[in-house]
Amino acid sequence: MAIRYPNGKKYTPKRILLENNNVKHKDERFSNRGMTLEEDINETNEYYRSRKIANIHKKPLPLQIVNVHYPKRSAAVVTEAYFKKPSTTDYNGVYKGFYLDFEAKETKNKTSFPFKNFHQHQIDHMKDIISHGGCSFILMRFAKTEEVFLVKAEDFIPYYEDKTSKRKSLPKTIIEEISYPVAVGYHPRVDYLRVIDRILRLN
Amino acid sequence: MAIRYPNGKKYTPKRILLENNNVKHKDERFSNRGMTLEEDINETNEYYRSRKIANIHKKPLPLQIVNVHYPKRSAAVVTEAYFKKPSTTDYNGVYKGFYLDFEAKETKNKTSFPFKNFHQHQIDHMKDIISHGGCSFILMRFAKTEEVFLVKAEDFIPYYEDKTSKRKSLPKTIIEEISYPVAVGYHPRVDYLRVIDRILRLN
Repeated sequence: MAIRYPNGKKYTPKRILLENNNVKHKDERFSNRGMTLEEDINETNEYYRSRKIANIHKKPLPLQIVNVHYPKRSAAVVTEAYFKKPSTTDYNGVYKGFYLDFEAKETKNKTSFPFKNFHQHQIDHMKDIISHGGCSFILMRFAKTEEVFLVKAEDFIPYYEDKTSKRKSLPKTIIEEISYPVAVGYHPRVDYLRVIDRILRLN
Repeated sequence: MAIRYPNGKKYTPKRILLENNNVKHKDERFSNRGMTLEEDINETNEYYRSRKIANIHKKPLPLQIVNVHYPKRSAAVVTEAYFKKPSTTDYNGVYKGFYLDFEAKETKNKTSFPFKNFHQHQIDHMKDIISHGGCSFILMRFAKTEEVFLVKAEDFIPYYEDKTSKRKSLPKTIIEEISYPVAVGYHPRVDYLRVIDRILRLN
């Protein structure tokens, strides 16, 4: 099935999009106007849930709660808590019987994606998910161009863990080779399940 | 494969266990001595993860953060936050390629499990998980006897939603009929994946 933008235009592959500023950034209807990748994915997941397409959620931020105050006749207030490092990825859920698990990351860089956006424990989590038969991936956004790429964890990890290379980031040219472009639109904003269908060969 | 307790004793079916206090409560090695069901499940999940059996996590408590203080030279402190109602169940993850999603609930009652322990939005979430091909269930513990039952969501929901009945709780006799007993031991403490194997007919 052809992917269509809300205006009925057919989704055109990445290489063409890259030369077509009109479709990609200039049309106000597609502009996120300051929305973060997280907000876009949350809206997309809400779209998927409301249309019974998939059940995928962002996990709450893990907090170490130290003090809670229980005032009379009103709700309990956490008065002291600290942010903990998440031990997993940010999003997971179920789609057509498959376990999906992913991380979403954004960079302001134009030509490469910094490895420092990832932590070893997240990489270890991704490997573990793969070993149990789950589908693990990363959604990477280049904020300046609003391009989103879906990279399968198994395709990303060898670059991240390549000790012979002194790279501190993954060049965008490589990302374009190993990833799938994600159609960015209005509703849903980041239609990553279209790519998952291709990866899982579901249509 | 026969399920064995840490002392080498073979797991014996529910009806026999119910008459066998020696195995079930009196042996100190099996006593949780005040551990909550949540603590037991967290330890069990840690056991499963460390042995590469499954990757299942408890989701952090969702908090609405209102104020964060950023002191110089030390970690950010959340100084005002409120508990939000979770919109999903507490645990999810992947096991042998299957998406598992469950809620753990405990009662001090002896003969029935109160429905007020569940919220409609959790039930709706369970239905949604089932519709997407996930495996949705509830772990119920009777705290007094330390018995744990695994009830598949599809077997529980009809009782919860039965409008013709005026029941405010599910009798334990019914739970025993519709559920699977979970072996409670020392390591892992609540070996619910044994039951999942039976449900998914994986062994």
